[in-house]
Amino acid sequence: MTLLDPALVTPRDARAAFREGVVTPTSGWSAGWTQANLLAVPRDRAYDFLLFAQRNPRACPVLDVTEPGEHAASIFDGDLRTDLPLYRVYEHGEQVAEVPDVRAYWRDDLVCFLIGCSFTFEAALLAAGVPVRHLEARTNVPMYRTNRECRPAGDLSGPLVVSMRPVPSGLVATAVRITSRYPAVHGAPVHVGDPAALGITDLGRPDYGDPVEVRAGELPVFWACGVTPQAAVTASRPPFAIGHAPGHMAITDARDDAYVVP
Amino acid sequence: MTLLDPALVTPRDARAAFREGVVTPTSGWSAGWTQANLLAVPRDRAYDFLLFAQRNPRACPVLDVTEPGEHAASIFDGDLRTDLPLYRVYEHGEQVAEVPDVRAYWRDDLVCFLIGCSFTFEAALLAAGVPVRHLEARTNVPMYRTNRECRPAGDLSGPLVVSMRPVPSGLVATAVRITSRYPAVHGAPVHVGDPAALGITDLGRPDYGDPVEVRAGELPVFWACGVTPQAAVTASRPPFAIGHAPGHMAITDARDDAYVVP
Repeated sequence: MTLLDPALVTPRDARAAFREGVVTPTSGWSAGWTQANLLAVPRDRAYDFLLFAQRNPRACPVLDVTEPGEHAASIFDGDLRTDLPLYRVYEHGEQVAEVPDVRAYWRDDLVCFLIGCSFTFEAALLAAGVPVRHLEARTNVPMYRTNRECRPAGDLSGPLVVSMRPVPSGLVATAVRITSRYPAVHGAPVHVGDPAALGITDLGRPDYGDPVEVRAGELPVFWACGVTPQAAVTASRPPFAIGHAPGHMAITDARDDAYVVP
Repeated sequence: MTLLDPALVTPRDARAAFREGVVTPTSGWSAGWTQANLLAVPRDRAYDFLLFAQRNPRACPVLDVTEPGEHAASIFDGDLRTDLPLYRVYEHGEQVAEVPDVRAYWRDDLVCFLIGCSFTFEAALLAAGVPVRHLEARTNVPMYRTNRECRPAGDLSGPLVVSMRPVPSGLVATAVRITSRYPAVHGAPVHVGDPAALGITDLGRPDYGDPVEVRAGELPVFWACGVTPQAAVTASRPPFAIGHAPGHMAITDARDDAYVVP
């Protein structure tokens, strides 16, 4: 692999790089192509999860669903078992592995859900002049479990997880306006300002990803996050699930533009 | 019931009227309140249907899902067995009854899906100066099965069903712009103009609802329709399902505004 700007790497090449062992957060990769969260659950848990997603659409906008045992999807012409940079494997809610290849854990009854990711609207934020701190810092986006409970479905329940981006006060309205045009990738922020209102006590210690600086004149802005399903797995302890490692997304063959509301 | 303008009737009063025997298409009723299509299927078919909806979101935007056997929903504080004006009951894809009360057919394992309805954006069309012919004529909207196949899910497959409204050529862009802001209630049109391109041979003979006049200077404009699930039931012949009679919708407690993208 050549030292291309990751933004210019095609989805196919990005997936090949991850398959070959590159492990990195994917924010900023393959600009213009939609990234997705992964949750794979056995077929007998698939209705509960799909209903959980329907009831929590801000956090869990479903972009695609595989047939049981399949490892490609209509928007992902690759191998969902190997072509993400990093995975987490859960048994009864406990993370039992974090690996770059989940073939050893694969089961023929697994259904994969691809869930929209807020990385998708970051190019639009940049284009509108809204800075994206974790892209500047080349780190993973900070994500936090909140005190807001999702609507349960079947045996699944858990807290809303949010991603956070610091936004200059004068650009908060722009950030809201831009991102609300992307309802399939979390849409408008769920909260602007005081983290304590979401039960977040320390922005410097995210539950997933890396902390970023919030500068004078900026407000922390919070978007619903596709890691929410994994927080539900942790909270609800279903027998088995596989997710991506937060920030280490599936890079799909769908264009960002496919998810914009004009 | 007094002879109020139906547009001014509250959802609660509308549901009471239907429960007491009023049978009418609901277009124009309870202005500002969201109307919904109904499909009820046994729990063991619920995943297939929810996946069918996820794969065909233009036609089947899911607004709410009940627990098995329940007959109220979070956006419908009434009785889904009695509070719609008219229902259709299907066995192995055949319509076996059309009744204003489905309690005699109810089963404790039924899951009810409430699906967005294009009647929701008609008030916004009127407010933007776009005429709505079937409202003027006080008839049901015309609906047509098309030659476009939905993406199948499990055993469910079938054609896309569309509703049609004639729009003056100079207002087509306005109609597109307005309705694309309502993705949860079918969103922008799927087709403008030539009905033959959708496999519709005679606009004067809709598959559901009533025909309307298309005048000189107008184009027929087609939106995905929430009767699509019932066309899938007819085509796929699952053992049992209940739907609303086309045009005879569930009037919910959700505001139209809840489904607008700003």
